[in-house]
Amino acid sequence: MRLAKTDNELIRDFHHVWHPCTQMKDHEEVPPLLVDRAEGIYLFDRDGNRYMDVISSWWVNLLGHNHPRLNDAVKAQLDRMAHVMFAGITHRPAIDLAEKLVRLTPPNLTRVFFSDNGSTSVEIALKMSVQYWMQSGKPGKKRFAYLSGGYHGETLGALSVCGIGMFRKPFEEVLAPNIEVAGPDCFRCPYGLKPESCAAECFEPMEKTLESRHRELAAVIVEPLVQGAAGMKMYPAAYLAKLQDACRAHGVHTIYDEIAVGFGRTGDLFVCSGKKMDPTFLCLSKGITSGYLPLAVTMTGEEVFSAFYGDYESLKLFIHSHSYTANPLACACANATLDILTGENFMAGLAPRISAMREEARRLEDLEWCGEYRQTGMIGALELVRDRATGEPFPFDRRIGYRVYLEGLKRGIFMRPLGNVIYFLPPLVISPEEIGTMVETARQCVEAVLNP
Amino acid sequence: MRLAKTDNELIRDFHHVWHPCTQMKDHEEVPPLLVDRAEGIYLFDRDGNRYMDVISSWWVNLLGHNHPRLNDAVKAQLDRMAHVMFAGITHRPAIDLAEKLVRLTPPNLTRVFFSDNGSTSVEIALKMSVQYWMQSGKPGKKRFAYLSGGYHGETLGALSVCGIGMFRKPFEEVLAPNIEVAGPDCFRCPYGLKPESCAAECFEPMEKTLESRHRELAAVIVEPLVQGAAGMKMYPAAYLAKLQDACRAHGVHTIYDEIAVGFGRTGDLFVCSGKKMDPTFLCLSKGITSGYLPLAVTMTGEEVFSAFYGDYESLKLFIHSHSYTANPLACACANATLDILTGENFMAGLAPRISAMREEARRLEDLEWCGEYRQTGMIGALELVRDRATGEPFPFDRRIGYRVYLEGLKRGIFMRPLGNVIYFLPPLVISPEEIGTMVETARQCVEAVLNP
Repeated sequence: MRLAKTDNELIRDFHHVWHPCTQMKDHEEVPPLLVDRAEGIYLFDRDGNRYMDVISSWWVNLLGHNHPRLNDAVKAQLDRMAHVMFAGITHRPAIDLAEKLVRLTPPNLTRVFFSDNGSTSVEIALKMSVQYWMQSGKPGKKRFAYLSGGYHGETLGALSVCGIGMFRKPFEEVLAPNIEVAGPDCFRCPYGLKPESCAAECFEPMEKTLESRHRELAAVIVEPLVQGAAGMKMYPAAYLAKLQDACRAHGVHTIYDEIAVGFGRTGDLFVCSGKKMDPTFLCLSKGITSGYLPLAVTMTGEEVFSAFYGDYESLKLFIHSHSYTANPLACACANATLDILTGENFMAGLAPRISAMREEARRLEDLEWCGEYRQTGMIGALELVRDRATGEPFPFDRRIGYRVYLEGLKRGIFMRPLGNVIYFLPPLVISPEEIGTMVETARQCVEAVLNP
Repeated sequence: MRLAKTDNELIRDFHHVWHPCTQMKDHEEVPPLLVDRAEGIYLFDRDGNRYMDVISSWWVNLLGHNHPRLNDAVKAQLDRMAHVMFAGITHRPAIDLAEKLVRLTPPNLTRVFFSDNGSTSVEIALKMSVQYWMQSGKPGKKRFAYLSGGYHGETLGALSVCGIGMFRKPFEEVLAPNIEVAGPDCFRCPYGLKPESCAAECFEPMEKTLESRHRELAAVIVEPLVQGAAGMKMYPAAYLAKLQDACRAHGVHTIYDEIAVGFGRTGDLFVCSGKKMDPTFLCLSKGITSGYLPLAVTMTGEEVFSAFYGDYESLKLFIHSHSYTANPLACACANATLDILTGENFMAGLAPRISAMREEARRLEDLEWCGEYRQTGMIGALELVRDRATGEPFPFDRRIGYRVYLEGLKRGIFMRPLGNVIYFLPPLVISPEEIGTMVETARQCVEAVLNP
């Protein structure tokens, strides 16, 4: 182990911390970056070296680190009350946040159920959907359809609607038998169409599933427009429109997982509001506190809510809780975040950034290993391939993405590629100049790995 | 709705917030308590009325609300960095916390995997156990045994090891088929024994289950000593000793869910360390930040860890993550909490409080509806029964607990009985005098409901 005799803090990390989604043996050679403080879009290590946080610390940070208004909001709440339970009790930070979210999302979404993270917000949607159907005389509707490439969290319920084998494989035997449906794959479109001009012909498998299995289907769950963990796979809104129509026709709920894409990432505050969709459930987390504190919500409307509303003796209530539900510190931070996002000019200020990213990314398209550069709002992704003509991917054990990541560390940007997909999902406040640096640095990293 | 025309904030709550584990229709008559601030063991509403937080805001608060040292710890961390991702990156607050936890728990627990709440910490233990056996050549070991009355959270994986029908019922069809085993029931002991002097004869069903089904069992999960959600059901450590021996003999993991009982509640910092037990996994949350912020850990040892350790290409890594894993603000708060708990005299200071609660509770034992008063450390519970001689319970639709709760609100204490069980789980800093007030007020509430 390279760090063994030289670095006390990293040795303690190595001996006692088990990092998420990490082969810990990798840290024998390359210890984790020990981040000491953060400011704006930059992370700083103990020696003062800075790293641009181009993936917003796992897609959570919107407004930059150490933001004075967010810090003040958390401190002010801290001086009143860090936390109080949320059954039998309520508090202003949660009431304010619920009201803001209801105002900013589609009109059918009127109810806010709080939890702590994206996985729990998905579990809650799944549970509400199943219980709704049971209490509406359709107990057979207890399965979920999900897209190949879909990712909705890693607790076992959320994992049962995951369309990525790597996450599911060791746990297949303990997962509920839901229904995976081939989803959009625009880069390698089997219909030979372009997302700009297609009519979501790839909806066909979902259409068939809904037709044949709607009696057992409670809901369909999707990440609208961008499948994050699948490698920032992007697809057009036409698919969502077809999904909404078909689910309505067949009496199946829709669950929008906007955990990654919500709060401005796609250029709209939320995909559902921007695209005028009315999902039955909306799951939000990550950006909700601009990357400060764990918090999540599951939103739904009066139709679902009223199926749980009745006399106590009916036992129709929704029994689900987490101790820190609607944590006031996190709610206060979320309120401040939404005030900034909905403040004058914030969302309008994204347009030049989105254009800058698109413009700068041209230099990536010139790389001979560029299978595709794709972008939705402030999310950009470069899919590297071994053969540009055929789209043949690099084999996983060449660890192209990981090697690009290591080059990034040398050059002061913190990426975390998904397989062979190098992506940008920076804080929304990144400047056009910084976007230039980010893209050019990433290009150099790819060159360093593939054309050394 | 009683509040409709008089109270703007509660109307907004009523229209947009869906509270956890709550029949929302109840709020037509009795709106939730709108808590404005909190201090020490008291919650304050907008009019300055105070309520003693006798259940520590769902069992989380240890050191009182608005604690200067905890506030300072959170603010200091906030000025450095609220959050940063925890894959490829590490930070001091997490390293320090991991090291402290390893030092304070049994020697076999050396690795700390972070997450956000109790449910996720249980999901992680379940997943690690299943994957461990798969990677150790025993893929058939994929079921869990759990105790009747056991509660481990409400995400679908955690719910699949829940032994309380009310939580499971609407979701039975989507839960993995685990194995419920009759556990201890000391109040209504089928062996006619007393917990003080028994030898855990009630281990028999678990013994038989382990004997006959160990080939399919990955782990047994328990809440050691106190089954919280079941109504603070308490059982002796003799059961845990038998469980440990039998699980070792049969090659089955043990998972200790100390989410509710950890961090001093039973009089020991942790049950496993106090009772000299070596569980394979230890789940902690709730008190870990003394009721400030969501945080959880799943701890395990080198045997489990090493089964996931290897070259990347082996794909043996544990793939699980939450965006806010090891949130630095929460870790900083947890470090300050542990510094206080392990400071000179803190744990020793519990003894007089525990005695005071036991002493004061004698007045509860005189109530004619007292089925049993039981206590483990700082957790006390009064089980109300219709007939003391036979132990016949009150029917659920009389809502005795709920009515006692309403009486408590009138008298300035915030309880949340579990069915017909009135319990005390106060912040550990409650004074002996306040314990007297708490118990006497609860007694008056019971009298007001049952002997009006």
